[in-house]
Amino acid sequence: MGAALIAAVGATPELQLAGLAERAGHPAVGTKVVDKLTVCANATAIAHSCDVLIDFTTPEALAGNLEAACAGKCAILVGTTGLDASHHAAIDRAAQSIAVLQAANTSLGVTVMAALVERAASLLGTDWDIEIAELHHRHKRDAPSGTALALGVAAASGRGVALASVAKRGRDGIGPARVAGEIGFASLRGGSAAGDHSVLFAGEGERLIISHHAEGRELFASGAVRAAAWLGGKPAGRYTMAQVLGL
Amino acid sequence: MGAALIAAVGATPELQLAGLAERAGHPAVGTKVVDKLTVCANATAIAHSCDVLIDFTTPEALAGNLEAACAGKCAILVGTTGLDASHHAAIDRAAQSIAVLQAANTSLGVTVMAALVERAASLLGTDWDIEIAELHHRHKRDAPSGTALALGVAAASGRGVALASVAKRGRDGIGPARVAGEIGFASLRGGSAAGDHSVLFAGEGERLIISHHAEGRELFASGAVRAAAWLGGKPAGRYTMAQVLGL
Amino acid sequence: MGAALIAAVGATPELQLAGLAERAGHPAVGTKVVDKLTVCANATAIAHSCDVLIDFTTPEALAGNLEAACAGKCAILVGTTGLDASHHAAIDRAAQSIAVLQAANTSLGVTVMAALVERAASLLGTDWDIEIAELHHRHKRDAPSGTALALGVAAASGRGVALASVAKRGRDGIGPARVAGEIGFASLRGGSAAGDHSVLFAGEGERLIISHHAEGRELFASGAVRAAAWLGGKPAGRYTMAQVLGL
Amino acid sequence: MGAALIAAVGATPELQLAGLAERAGHPAVGTKVVDKLTVCANATAIAHSCDVLIDFTTPEALAGNLEAACAGKCAILVGTTGLDASHHAAIDRAAQSIAVLQAANTSLGVTVMAALVERAASLLGTDWDIEIAELHHRHKRDAPSGTALALGVAAASGRGVALASVAKRGRDGIGPARVAGEIGFASLRGGSAAGDHSVLFAGEGERLIISHHAEGRELFASGAVRAAAWLGGKPAGRYTMAQVLGL
Repeated sequence: MGAALIAAVGATPELQLAGLAERAGHPAVGTKVVDKLTVCANATAIAHSCDVLIDFTTPEALAGNLEAACAGKCAILVGTTGLDASHHAAIDRAAQSIAVLQAANTSLGVTVMAALVERAASLLGTDWDIEIAELHHRHKRDAPSGTALALGVAAASGRGVALASVAKRGRDGIGPARVAGEIGFASLRGGSAAGDHSVLFAGEGERLIISHHAEGRELFASGAVRAAAWLGGKPAGRYTMAQVLGL
Repeated sequence: MGAALIAAVGATPELQLAGLAERAGHPAVGTKVVDKLTVCANATAIAHSCDVLIDFTTPEALAGNLEAACAGKCAILVGTTGLDASHHAAIDRAAQSIAVLQAANTSLGVTVMAALVERAASLLGTDWDIEIAELHHRHKRDAPSGTALALGVAAASGRGVALASVAKRGRDGIGPARVAGEIGFASLRGGSAAGDHSVLFAGEGERLIISHHAEGRELFASGAVRAAAWLGGKPAGRYTMAQVLGL
Repeated sequence: MGAALIAAVGATPELQLAGLAERAGHPAVGTKVVDKLTVCANATAIAHSCDVLIDFTTPEALAGNLEAACAGKCAILVGTTGLDASHHAAIDRAAQSIAVLQAANTSLGVTVMAALVERAASLLGTDWDIEIAELHHRHKRDAPSGTALALGVAAASGRGVALASVAKRGRDGIGPARVAGEIGFASLRGGSAAGDHSVLFAGEGERLIISHHAEGRELFASGAVRAAAWLGGKPAGRYTMAQVLGL
Repeated sequence: MGAALIAAVGATPELQLAGLAERAGHPAVGTKVVDKLTVCANATAIAHSCDVLIDFTTPEALAGNLEAACAGKCAILVGTTGLDASHHAAIDRAAQSIAVLQAANTSLGVTVMAALVERAASLLGTDWDIEIAELHHRHKRDAPSGTALALGVAAASGRGVALASVAKRGRDGIGPARVAGEIGFASLRGGSAAGDHSVLFAGEGERLIISHHAEGRELFASGAVRAAAWLGGKPAGRYTMAQVLGL
C-alpha cells in the first residue's frame, strides 16, 4: 500500500508528499524513496509539518501514529484494519482534539455497498438470514477482513442491533442449527486477490446478494488520498467515508 | 405458474379461488382442476364474480384479460412478461377504470433489489458502467427477461434517463467500444433455472454487483397472491410491487 | 429427503418401495405413508425383504442401519453426512459382507465436479491455493458439508496428499498467514438453499473456480435412487458414485 | 499489452528483447522505448534478427506479421483475438514453414479451464445446456471474446460437434425456445475488467459452472512470454498452449 499511496499522492496536483515513515528496523528506513524524502522510523516529525497523516500500518502501530497526529495537531486518516475495541477507544480519544477518519475500506464502491447493505437489512425482516463472505490474498493475516466487519456493522445497524450480539464467526463442526437474527462471517484466503466481499440475504425460496470486487489495491490508495484531501483542515471529530462521498 | 398460483391461493386463508381460465384449445379447458372449479377458456365470467384477476399468460392474451377485468369491474394483477409499449398503453387505459398492478417480478427480493439498483445508479456516476445479466430455464422465450428490463428501468431512473435511450441488447460482433452511459443486457438460457438476475456497476478498478436468485417459482406465486390480496378493493389506478411492500 | 426419495422410487418403474423406517419416537412411526406401507422404527425387517436399503439419516443412526443391511444381506446406499473416521471404519467393515455405496452427494453434477477438481488440483501446482466454500439452508447442522469435505478429498487426492494433513477449517481471528498447500473450508448457512459448493484455485493474478448449484433436493433423491438401482445385486465391497456414472 | 510484454521479457533472464513494432502512424514509432531499441513500423526487420515474434495486434495487422515471420524464418506467437476463418487459414499456411502458436488466451488458468470444459462436456449429455458468459473492460471491441469462443470450441469438441453448427450468439428478443445442443454466448462490457469467463452446464435441477477470473493483464503477458520461450526453435507446425503446459 505504501507505494500505491505515494503514487496516488503524486497523481493529485493539490497535494504534496510531506514525509514517509516505516516501523523502526524496516530496511527502507533511512533510504530516500521519492522526492528526496528520507524514510524515517517515527511519524511525529512528519505530523508537525503536514496537514494530514495517512496510516496504513498494523493495530500495534496505530497508537503511536495517533499520538503523533495529536502532537502535531494534524488530521489523520486511519486505513489500518484488524482493530479491536481498545483501538476504537484510542481513535475516539484522538478525535477529541483532531480530525480522524477511520475506514476499513476507502473505496467508493464499498462505501456505497455499505449504504445499500444497511438499507436492505432494514427492508428485509429477520426471516432473511444475513451471511458475509470475503476473499483476500494469501498474505492477509486477519479474518474476517475489516471491510467484512464494517459491512456487518452496516447490516446490524439496518436491523437496529449491535453486531457483537449477533455475529457468528468461523462456523465449523456439528452444532445447533442457525439462530434467527445471526450474521455469519466466512473468510477465504488465496492467491493475490485484492479483496472480494459479498453480503447474502437468504430468504425462503430466494436470495439477494450485494457484492464488491476490488481489481487491485490502487483504488484503496486513490480513495484514501481523496479522503485525506477532504479531511485536511476539518475541525476535531470522527468522520466517515460516507461523509467524504456525500452519501 | 398456474399450479403454483392455485397452491398459493389455497395457502392464504383470507382468499378464495373464484375460477380458472386457460387459452381456448388448451387441454385443461373443460376439466375440473381444483375445488370443483371447471377451467374455462375466457376470463370474462370469472371477472364478474371475483375481486381480483391474476394474469400470468402471454402478451397476446393480455388485452383480453384487461377487457375482462374492466367489464367485470375487478382489479387485475399482471405478471405476464414480454410486454412492449402497446401493452403498457393498454394497461394504462385499463387503469383509468380499475386497479391494475403490473409487475415483471412479484418477489419481495426483486422488489427490494430494484430499489437498491436505483439508489446505486444515482450514487455512482456514469463513469461506472451498468450491465445486467440474467439466466432462465431453457423454455423461456423472451430475452431479456421482463425482470431484467424492469431492473434496467430502475437503473436508468436512478440516472434520470429513459432506458430506451441507453439500452444495449444482444451485444455481438466487432464494433465500436462501449458508449458511456449505456446499460447492457445479456441473457443466458439453460436447464431448469427459475431466474437469476445480476446488475453490475463496473468502475475503474472495482465493481459493485447486486444479484437475485430465485430457487423456484413458488416465491413468484406467493408474491403475486400477496399483491392480489393487497390490490382487491383499491381505487382505479396503476400500482407497483414497491407499494405493496411499503417501500 | 424421505418424501423426495419416496417420490423418486415411485417414478422409477423397475423399482418397488419395500418399506419405510424412521427413528423410534418419530410421529410418523406407525402411520401408513404410501402404498399401505406402515412406517416402522427399525430397518432390520425391511432389510430382510429388500435388495437395497437407502440410508439418509444421522451419523448416530448409521451403525444400526449397517447392521440391519448386513443381517438382511442386502446392499446399502449411505447418503448420510457428518460422518467421522469411526463411521467410515464401520462402513468398511460392512463392505466386507455386503455392497455399500457411501456418497456425500448423489448428484451427477457433483460427481463430475469432484472428477474435475481432482484433475485441476493435479494440473495446478501448490502455488495455486485451494479454498472450498459452501452454502446450505439454515437448518443444516454440520459444517463443512459432507460434499465440501468430499471435494476436499478430491482436491487433496489430485495433489497426492491426505486431506486431514492440509485442511484448514473455520478460519477466524488474527494469526499467521496462509500456509502453502493448505485447503481451506468456509461454510455459509441461510434461507432454504439446497446446496451450493465452490472450489477456488487462486493463483498469482488469476483464479479458476469450479462450482455446483443444487436448485432443490429432488436431484439428490433421484441420484440416490439411480445409484441404489445400480447397487442392487453387486458383490460385497465399497462403491462410489463415480462408478455408478461410469466415470 | 505492449508494456506488459516488455516487462515480462525483461523479467525472464533467458530471453532478450530484439525489437519493437507498432502500426505505421502510431506516435510511438521512431521513439526509443527500452534498451535503446527504436520502435519501428514494420516487424520484418525484427523477424530476421530474432527467434520468436510475439503478435498482440489486430486482425488486420496479423497477415503482415505472419509474412514477416515467414520471411525471417522465425517462430511467431499470435495472441491477437477477433480472428475469423480467413485469419485461421493464413495461420495454417504460415505453419507449413514456421512454428506458430495461436492462443486466444495465454494464461495457465484458462488453458487448464479449457481442458476441464472439454471433459465436462463429454461426461454430461446434451440434456445439460451449455452457456458461456464473459466480462471485459469497456474498451474491448470484439464480442464474444476470443477466449469465450475458444472455450466454446473446447465444449463442442467434448461433444464431438463443430462449434459453428451449435453456437448461439447475442440472444435477444422473443423467439423459439432454446434448441437442445446449442452453446450460447453472452458478453458484458464495463469498467476495467481484465477478463472473466464462465462456462455453465445447466441440467435438470442442478448446475455446474467452471469460471476463470483474470486480476490484470500481467498474467497474459507472462504466459505469452513463457510460451514464446517454449516455441523458439520448434519445427514448423501449429502449436497450442496445452502443449506448452504439457497437458
